[in-house]
Amino acid sequence: MKYAVGVDIGGTTVKIGIFEENSKLIDKWEIPTVTEDGGKRIIPDIAESVLSKLEEKDIKKSDVLGVGVGAPGAVDDEGYMPNGAVNLGWKPFNLREEFEKEIGLRVIGANDANVAAFGEMWQGGGLGYSDMVAVTLGTGVGGGIITGGKIIAGAAGAGGEIGHIHIEDNESETCGCGNKGCLEQYASATGIVRLAGRRLEKDDTPSVLREGAVTAKAVFDAVKAGDKLACEVAEQFGYYLGKGLAAVANVVNPQVFVIGGGVSKAGEMLIPFIEPSFKKYAFNPCRCAKFAMAELGNDAGIVGAAGMVIKADE
Amino acid sequence: MKYAVGVDIGGTTVKIGIFEENSKLIDKWEIPTVTEDGGKRIIPDIAESVLSKLEEKDIKKSDVLGVGVGAPGAVDDEGYMPNGAVNLGWKPFNLREEFEKEIGLRVIGANDANVAAFGEMWQGGGLGYSDMVAVTLGTGVGGGIITGGKIIAGAAGAGGEIGHIHIEDNESETCGCGNKGCLEQYASATGIVRLAGRRLEKDDTPSVLREGAVTAKAVFDAVKAGDKLACEVAEQFGYYLGKGLAAVANVVNPQVFVIGGGVSKAGEMLIPFIEPSFKKYAFNPCRCAKFAMAELGNDAGIVGAAGMVIKADE
Repeated sequence: MKYAVGVDIGGTTVKIGIFEENSKLIDKWEIPTVTEDGGKRIIPDIAESVLSKLEEKDIKKSDVLGVGVGAPGAVDDEGYMPNGAVNLGWKPFNLREEFEKEIGLRVIGANDANVAAFGEMWQGGGLGYSDMVAVTLGTGVGGGIITGGKIIAGAAGAGGEIGHIHIEDNESETCGCGNKGCLEQYASATGIVRLAGRRLEKDDTPSVLREGAVTAKAVFDAVKAGDKLACEVAEQFGYYLGKGLAAVANVVNPQVFVIGGGVSKAGEMLIPFIEPSFKKYAFNPCRCAKFAMAELGNDAGIVGAAGMVIKADE
Repeated sequence: MKYAVGVDIGGTTVKIGIFEENSKLIDKWEIPTVTEDGGKRIIPDIAESVLSKLEEKDIKKSDVLGVGVGAPGAVDDEGYMPNGAVNLGWKPFNLREEFEKEIGLRVIGANDANVAAFGEMWQGGGLGYSDMVAVTLGTGVGGGIITGGKIIAGAAGAGGEIGHIHIEDNESETCGCGNKGCLEQYASATGIVRLAGRRLEKDDTPSVLREGAVTAKAVFDAVKAGDKLACEVAEQFGYYLGKGLAAVANVVNPQVFVIGGGVSKAGEMLIPFIEPSFKKYAFNPCRCAKFAMAELGNDAGIVGAAGMVIKADE
């Protein structure tokens, strides 16, 4: 039996999993991310934790195909991180080379969003597809583009930054990136709250959203309860997301969009809000793209990281 | 010495070239495209012409690596044309299989715009790059996306259909695709004429464009002569094209955009009109993309087709 290790480095914890090459998860655990001193302990900490777990499980290093790593920053095809990783304190360096030196195993590194996308294709909502776009609706809007079964890293490791596609000319507030009218300003959890706030201020239409804190979850719960104002907000969200994904479809023509992230917990009820606008704005041959929900949740990173290693030689 | 054949099938002529595997063109010629009877003679005609040329040049079939073919329609990774090719009278069929049966050589088929993009990467304006977007500004706006040296065909063979990205909410006229506000309505030769017409109607500003026929060429010639009104039209063209390419950059993060097609004959003077809007709308890490002009002209198709065969095994 051969094995692969999947590592997902976050700002507070590192998730690690050991998988059989048939994709079965044997064990998963977490260690804290120590970001002090420019994050210099992160890689040695992971290496030590992985190697001691392999020993504990009586798995020989020669039976490990390699270690896949998802990191929170741009990573190019050579494993170089041109901007480092701000959240970890990392300056620009070659993640793959450093990691290989430390752990003595083959390492494949990629951006964490792209790795999670790969996980969803290999074992989640994108199973059975090779041309897929993963859309992560969380605090921001992220994306991971896979064509012909391969992640598109992009020249600066910034492939799939779909949250910053310009989608609205009439926007007065500024996005975190400095522009105005980015997809992220309407389709992220924060964006949905913003849309709801604007709608609530517009007039006195009664709504359950006038009681308690307005969150993306509260909006979609209210939609499920038939709240008219919340439905209008969901329609606006869907209008913008569909319009943005139509642009993505015209570029890479995917078979499927897999929707994940915190907002996606609302479930498949999101899809009917997105599809009409998507079909309106997408070029006819690109309209065939399906919509599916992500299935792996927080495990998408470790699954995708291990999957990159297992699928690398196919 | 090994050889490759490049074939570019157009609606009126088929261009054919024989290349050495080092990329040197040995001979190129054209035959008419006979579209009668559902275009059933096209493939046999090409096969006969190629085989007799190989005999004439004393090139053994065993020394030919294969035949690359660009066709005017969607072609998936298996060589299947899901929509056939309207201009040729072709119904849906597998181009690769039919062609291989006819010619007795390995065939690789792809969409003609994507093949031309591949040619520009291999031998033209994109030489030295592996992540490239070719932008064709002709009667319409087409695109070809290459990442990691490979063409993105897309699920329906419609990868790179960037001309139909929605770019303007306030448009009253309808694009050929049925939508309103597509990039093609502003950045194609036809689109530039439309923008010029609107500007000329707006007021009485003097312009050389008020004399004679308004064409895209006339607009850029007037820009070169310092015509203020023409400059405004070029700025609008550049605003829309830059905005559209920014969306493309946020999806696939290319190293370079290579601008071709009839409009590109205006030369490098186009770039300063496009770049400001591109840099404004592109997400910061995606702004590094360079702009270059296509170099192969009408030969891009045969060069790219042969290149697909030569690079296929690398």
